[in-house]
Amino acid sequence: MDEFETIARLFAPLTRGEPGALGLGDDAALLAPRPGFDLVLTKDAIVGGVHFFPDDPPAAIGAKLMRVNLSDLAAKGASPRAFLLAAALPPAVDDAWLTAFAAGIGADLDRFGGALVGGDTVSTSGPAVFSLTAIGEVPAGGMIRRAGALPGDLVCVSGTIGDAALYVAHRLHRAEVAQIDQLEDRYRYPRPRLALGAALRGLAHAGCDVSDGLVADLGHICAQSGLGAVIEAGAVPLSPAARETLARRPALLPTVLTGGDDYELVFALPPEADLAALEAVCPVSVIGRFEQGQGVRVLDRAGSPLKLDRTGWRHPVGRGDGSR
Amino acid sequence: MDEFETIARLFAPLTRGEPGALGLGDDAALLAPRPGFDLVLTKDAIVGGVHFFPDDPPAAIGAKLMRVNLSDLAAKGASPRAFLLAAALPPAVDDAWLTAFAAGIGADLDRFGGALVGGDTVSTSGPAVFSLTAIGEVPAGGMIRRAGALPGDLVCVSGTIGDAALYVAHRLHRAEVAQIDQLEDRYRYPRPRLALGAALRGLAHAGCDVSDGLVADLGHICAQSGLGAVIEAGAVPLSPAARETLARRPALLPTVLTGGDDYELVFALPPEADLAALEAVCPVSVIGRFEQGQGVRVLDRAGSPLKLDRTGWRHPVGRGDGSR
Repeated sequence: MDEFETIARLFAPLTRGEPGALGLGDDAALLAPRPGFDLVLTKDAIVGGVHFFPDDPPAAIGAKLMRVNLSDLAAKGASPRAFLLAAALPPAVDDAWLTAFAAGIGADLDRFGGALVGGDTVSTSGPAVFSLTAIGEVPAGGMIRRAGALPGDLVCVSGTIGDAALYVAHRLHRAEVAQIDQLEDRYRYPRPRLALGAALRGLAHAGCDVSDGLVADLGHICAQSGLGAVIEAGAVPLSPAARETLARRPALLPTVLTGGDDYELVFALPPEADLAALEAVCPVSVIGRFEQGQGVRVLDRAGSPLKLDRTGWRHPVGRGDGSR
Repeated sequence: MDEFETIARLFAPLTRGEPGALGLGDDAALLAPRPGFDLVLTKDAIVGGVHFFPDDPPAAIGAKLMRVNLSDLAAKGASPRAFLLAAALPPAVDDAWLTAFAAGIGADLDRFGGALVGGDTVSTSGPAVFSLTAIGEVPAGGMIRRAGALPGDLVCVSGTIGDAALYVAHRLHRAEVAQIDQLEDRYRYPRPRLALGAALRGLAHAGCDVSDGLVADLGHICAQSGLGAVIEAGAVPLSPAARETLARRPALLPTVLTGGDDYELVFALPPEADLAALEAVCPVSVIGRFEQGQGVRVLDRAGSPLKLDRTGWRHPVGRGDGSR
């Protein structure tokens, strides 16, 4: 397929009938904003060998590209509306690969909403580079920010923490882990917490997603809110796979607390918030409190400070990830 | 500089005080749409060795990235408002390079308007890949599309055609050209025709920018409008450098007509349009007419059809450019 065929056969169907996409046949897309809504804009890029393993299934890579961006929208309380895709493809990418990649994106458009409205396909002599721009909408003034947490607010997280980091530790450093298939699935298919994000609008004082690692991302909220936080390692929610892994290899606890790629939400709730109502949407755990000061303190089960070598995730190849 | 320093020192100043950028310190940016305006979205990517020469000055690469996207906004009649940048950087990119690249973007923000509101910086083992998402605004319903040209409409182009293609032919195929500095400047610093695009709102029936090549891009308007067009090669406006080059090497005429990277506008005007009013904004030339049928016919000075080997530009490396 040449680029026009690729657009017509693989990408134009991803417009899902959105009229503003103009069938991907114009220089640009048109977005008529809905009155009473703000737009939320995010753009994350992923690179072969850095953010995904080159042997990951192409549909999973498409899904991951969607979900790292959807997770940002979720963290801000926004609903997905439109996407723009830039794909820089090496010669080794053939039609079958690209077809499966597009199918991965399409399945997530159906699952999470929104439409592809534009983008660009170019060639590179290096590894594949994909960037996705995600545009969501949120009732005017309703975006959840990193700034805004108050002293005494509860530190809450969704779902479970650490599975993706344990998978990466296994792949890169042969760490011995349990239930590898479960961990791989969490690494490949992050769950953007869109319903929870919507439920947190007007309720959470601040929030972000856990992409760099729990301690680092909580640190971002602290920095933007001008606060510190204290969390209990024992309260951090774990999947059965992570629990089993840590039971055998307690030394992997820092990997769980500081590893990235979870794409859960971490957020600040006032102490009087109705947790049960949120639990109906998505599992939520209280792991600590915001406090005056700065930085994140992590306490072990005895209440002593845990010393962590690093607070956040750096991707395996060279320069770190400036993902926001 | 690590990624956080890069964002703080180089990219955060490019937010130019736009409050919705949240200082590049959040997961996403906030855009409150102006009532009565539609948003116009475009995203083009450029790759080292494909869309720019690796020895191009970094400030020029930043400017080119801005301008290929601004040109799409111009073609649609939109004014720039916000940008999101994804940069995949090879290890060879050092702080000095990145500082100059950011300065090139900053100079164009000052010149053309808008603000950087988000993005992502990642590493790659391959050549640099940059993608820019440009968001413009246009009075509701006012976007100029590729569809909409009518039979009898004038085919018009802005500025002059072919300089960038002659420069590329010189660099890649040692084509003998005149006034190389002029050609290089046109290649490196496209002029997005934003003022002309704004003047064309409500006047042009259709339009797009000349990125793939004059004949190919006019062909896009024809295809989307369900028409054909006939143009006279002798009427295509040329710079002094291109005129002098063609006087010496007439065989380069097809390069001028089909080469890309001009970033002028090609558009459909009703025959009764006031060209003089447009001329006050930007030089405009009438080069032909839209007609029933399909495809673009090019006539030589004697009125005979010119046979062109190709109608559009393919970038030098491998897979073509799916740029829209």
